[in-house]
Amino acid sequence: MADTQTAQDAVLERPIRDEDGAIDAGLIEQISQAVLLSDLTTLRAVVADMHEADLGAVLEALDPEERPRLISLLGADFDFTALTEVDDAVREEILEELSAQTVAEGVRDLDTDDAVYILEDLNEADKQEVLDKLTPSERVALQQGLDYPEGSAGRRMQSEVVAVPPFWTVGQTIDYLRETEDVPERFFEIFIADPAHHFVGTVQLDRLLRTKRPVPVAELVGEENRVVKATDDIEDVARMFQRYNLVAAPVVDDAGRLVGVMTIDDIVDVIEEAADDDVKQLGGVDADEELSDPVRQIAKSRFRWLFINLLTSFLAAAVMSLFEAQMTKLVALAILAPIVASQGGNAATQTMTVAVRALATQELGAWNLRRFFTREMIVGLLNGVGFALITGVTAAIWFSSTGLGLVIGVAMIVNLIAAAGAGVAIPVLLDRFDIDPAIASGTFVTTVTDVVGFFAFLGIATLWLGLG
Amino acid sequence: MADTQTAQDAVLERPIRDEDGAIDAGLIEQISQAVLLSDLTTLRAVVADMHEADLGAVLEALDPEERPRLISLLGADFDFTALTEVDDAVREEILEELSAQTVAEGVRDLDTDDAVYILEDLNEADKQEVLDKLTPSERVALQQGLDYPEGSAGRRMQSEVVAVPPFWTVGQTIDYLRETEDVPERFFEIFIADPAHHFVGTVQLDRLLRTKRPVPVAELVGEENRVVKATDDIEDVARMFQRYNLVAAPVVDDAGRLVGVMTIDDIVDVIEEAADDDVKQLGGVDADEELSDPVRQIAKSRFRWLFINLLTSFLAAAVMSLFEAQMTKLVALAILAPIVASQGGNAATQTMTVAVRALATQELGAWNLRRFFTREMIVGLLNGVGFALITGVTAAIWFSSTGLGLVIGVAMIVNLIAAAGAGVAIPVLLDRFDIDPAIASGTFVTTVTDVVGFFAFLGIATLWLGLG
Repeated sequence: MADTQTAQDAVLERPIRDEDGAIDAGLIEQISQAVLLSDLTTLRAVVADMHEADLGAVLEALDPEERPRLISLLGADFDFTALTEVDDAVREEILEELSAQTVAEGVRDLDTDDAVYILEDLNEADKQEVLDKLTPSERVALQQGLDYPEGSAGRRMQSEVVAVPPFWTVGQTIDYLRETEDVPERFFEIFIADPAHHFVGTVQLDRLLRTKRPVPVAELVGEENRVVKATDDIEDVARMFQRYNLVAAPVVDDAGRLVGVMTIDDIVDVIEEAADDDVKQLGGVDADEELSDPVRQIAKSRFRWLFINLLTSFLAAAVMSLFEAQMTKLVALAILAPIVASQGGNAATQTMTVAVRALATQELGAWNLRRFFTREMIVGLLNGVGFALITGVTAAIWFSSTGLGLVIGVAMIVNLIAAAGAGVAIPVLLDRFDIDPAIASGTFVTTVTDVVGFFAFLGIATLWLGLG
Repeated sequence: MADTQTAQDAVLERPIRDEDGAIDAGLIEQISQAVLLSDLTTLRAVVADMHEADLGAVLEALDPEERPRLISLLGADFDFTALTEVDDAVREEILEELSAQTVAEGVRDLDTDDAVYILEDLNEADKQEVLDKLTPSERVALQQGLDYPEGSAGRRMQSEVVAVPPFWTVGQTIDYLRETEDVPERFFEIFIADPAHHFVGTVQLDRLLRTKRPVPVAELVGEENRVVKATDDIEDVARMFQRYNLVAAPVVDDAGRLVGVMTIDDIVDVIEEAADDDVKQLGGVDADEELSDPVRQIAKSRFRWLFINLLTSFLAAAVMSLFEAQMTKLVALAILAPIVASQGGNAATQTMTVAVRALATQELGAWNLRRFFTREMIVGLLNGVGFALITGVTAAIWFSSTGLGLVIGVAMIVNLIAAAGAGVAIPVLLDRFDIDPAIASGTFVTTVTDVVGFFAFLGIATLWLGLG
């Protein structure tokens, strides 16, 4: 009972974060003070046992000038893994302030995936300076990861793996694990590799544990033997992990040699980032915008997107201006036209959102595209008729004109069908041309619904209401 | 070398899916034919070794009436885990067609988390019928999971765990694992529990493997001892897994008794779903809309959201109509007003998107809210001034009126600042009242920018251009 209490306390009374997961403000204040006073005793006591994720959050919450100071003060007591947990902008700022020697000491003891993550964004000269301070074998391991392209599995893999020859028994393997110091900090499976380091198979730890000592490890290789190629796109690898519930997978080079391992903790970040990128891009924000980016950078990148939208607004306004004469005669047209355009824009956004996510998660493909398209067109038609009735009646009553009600009703149906068509076609086409549909779909889609909405409403009004 | 080749082939030549991850159309055709002809030999040959994820995808790709037929034909050869991999609508349809006996046989051998996932959406009567066909011990395990509320960790946990007493040694534990049949299919850590089943600590398998036989397992409990309470919100648990790179965590009840384990594969789905929900809701789509939902249901749920937007459009139109007289005198006002509103709407969407995601990932909290708000206001001001210049000059030239250019410029600055304010304030307020900001922010935010945009532009025009 006493033991239980302790284990529970450790979880329930974590003063580091409040219940919303935010770092405790008092703690930040305490650390900030200690940094100011160079109070190493307090710093060590508070920071020493902190998890890298919490330490990262502390770094982000500190003032920019306090961050490198904290790291320098702690020296070898600072866990550099924490730098993998902060925003890119924060990490870059910190690394700029630290000496190459400090960075080299810091990354030396990390798993290669973490070290590569920290070093990859440094400029070439700084990166080289840090690498030069490492031993040749440390340098080679990091250089291997850095040489793989950004976004590849090789960039995110950990090159420390546990590999044994196929002819070993369970007993030999366990004895080896017990006696060797040089194994990764954490591992979930061991790999079998031949003397030339070619990958042969994977053995789960639970399987190893449950098997008697004399059995050869080669017999424990499961049916599931999914392998990642170092050049594979990391998002495809993440999709595979998620689909097949993997916790780890071996990484091989083009010759089939075992070069590393991908683990689920990195994959979780990739999955969340991919979804996050979609959210941001659909909202008109750069995928790599982070909370700690400087104001100027944010204003600039958002400006770019708003500028494109301004052009489409002017295009819509130009369409409207074709009907200047009609609007002067009947100002109700000018008041109602934006309703048709806006309803179309929102309906198109719904369809587009579903299409973009289904493409991203590989749920939408050639095999069900026709079904999806048909469905969206029917939804567009149904809702088009529904809103035709509502807006038609409302407009007819508001402006005491049945004709105006009929016109806006027909325009609404036309625009909601156009919205469904554009909402499917534009993301699918962009995807086919290998353009990320999340980035550009929104602008194109609302351009279509604005233009169609204005043209349909004002055009039909011109013809039917005899305003021509 | 030969072995390597085999392992690679298994991966590189997977005919089940094409390179985009879509299930092979020929395979679907083959299975569909075999179902039609009740050709059990082919079905067994094709489906037997298939991973549950692939089998689930096959089910989704088949025609609705073929799905339960496939399952009945395969009988005990059908892996019910595949039902956890299909859309809810597909699963419900299938389960309706199967007998309670078939479902009971199917879920009997599953891990409890999978069984609960399959049964939870059945109506009470059907659920009870299935449970009645199980043995008491099977029933109790499932009932326990089903009794926890939806969205809680208890609902998603697996109740099969490996637990050993604190006084056991590594040797005893390994011998126990080797000799006991009744352990979970896969596990990543073992738990230490006292005789009353109170949770004491967690031991990682790699740690167990690397320790000599005489050492007591209690000594292997790591510093990281994060525990999940069965009543915890599953999204909070997911956040904890992601933050602390967990692969598994014990689940305890209110009395601290070990009742199950949460594993990362379930958590990955929770993380992706949470992000996915945000994407959909920001796009005006219900979070639980799935690709296989019937057309009627989709049209209805989308209609609801579009209807709310229609109301805000009419509100904006009403604002516009206050200035009917002015627009009749100067129709350029009607043509330009939507540009001001649209630019504001897009800028607000940018800010809102960043705020909603930062709230969801717990990156935005009381500690940095002021900083974030200030930043967004500055971005709004900077971009407001930028677009004031561009639209001002363009409008002045287009309609040969410096006054109109000045008016639209000032209105643009006002609306982009309002956009930034609303984009921060609305999600934050909704969050504070425990309303998911992703659901409702969009509507409120664009209402603000529409109304402010029209009022600012048309109001200033009325005053300055002497149109009153």
